[in-house]
Amino acid sequence: MSTKSSAGRIEDLESVACLELLASQSVGRVAFVIDGRPVILPVNYAVDGWSIVFRTSYGSKLVAASTASQVAFESDSFDRSIRSGWSVVAQGTAESVYDEEMIDRLEALELDTWADGQRDHWVRIHPDEITGRRVVQRPE
Amino acid sequence: MSTKSSAGRIEDLESVACLELLASQSVGRVAFVIDGRPVILPVNYAVDGWSIVFRTSYGSKLVAASTASQVAFESDSFDRSIRSGWSVVAQGTAESVYDEEMIDRLEALELDTWADGQRDHWVRIHPDEITGRRVVQRPE
Repeated sequence: MSTKSSAGRIEDLESVACLELLASQSVGRVAFVIDGRPVILPVNYAVDGWSIVFRTSYGSKLVAASTASQVAFESDSFDRSIRSGWSVVAQGTAESVYDEEMIDRLEALELDTWADGQRDHWVRIHPDEITGRRVVQRPE
Repeated sequence: MSTKSSAGRIEDLESVACLELLASQSVGRVAFVIDGRPVILPVNYAVDGWSIVFRTSYGSKLVAASTASQVAFESDSFDRSIRSGWSVVAQGTAESVYDEEMIDRLEALELDTWADGQRDHWVRIHPDEITGRRVVQRPE
C-alpha cells in the first residue's frame, strides 16, 4: 500500500502566533555548525520576550555553539492520531549570558530542566527570523 | 522561585535501542548546513534497516541537504507530566534515492506524510553514529 496520499493542508503562522506556540512547549532542538558539520541537540527552553533561553553546562557543545553564534532552533507539537500539529523554526544568533542581574532574572523563569548535572551556563538565542507552519487535515 | 534543581538521571542508550525508539516515532528533525549556516526542518520519517528515510519535494531545501550530504537527525519523545523521555541523534550522510526498485520498496513503507504537496523525492540518511539518551526521574 502506498502511503503517499495525504489530505493535510499547510498554513503559515504569524510570528506572534509562533512565539505563543513556542511558549507552550518546553523541549526544543538547537542546531549549529561545528567544523562545517551540523549538530543537533534537544534542550529544555523558555521564551523570554522575543528570545529563547536555555541552560547548559560549561564546556558543552552548546557553549561552543554560543560562540559559533549562528543557530537554528525548532520546537513542535504533533498529534499522531489526528496527523496534525505545528512546528516553529527560529534562525538567529546565540550568545552566552554573563550579566548577573540578567541571570537572576532568567533563574526566575519557569525553565524546567529535567536532566541532572551542572547547567550553570545560560544561552540566549536572538531570532532574526521566526517561521511556523501548522498542518491541518481536511475533512474527508 | 529557582527551578534549577532537578532529580533527572541521564542514561545513555545502545544503538539498537536507539533504532527501536526511532521506529516508534514518525516526526523527526533534519539539520544541515547551507552557506555555513545551520538549517533545521521537521520531517515525517521511517526507519529502513539501519537508515532513516523521508520524502520531500524536488527543489526543496532538503534536496540541497541531500547533496550537501552531512546531516544530523533527531527524534524524541518526552512526557512533560513526568519530566521523562528520550532523544536519539543520528549523524551521517544523506543521499537522494533514484533507484526505481528501491523507490518502490520505500513507497511500501508505512511512511505517513501528513502534509499536502508533491513529495516525490526520497532521501536516505546513512548514520555514521547513532546516540541516544533517556531522562529518568529519580523517586523523591
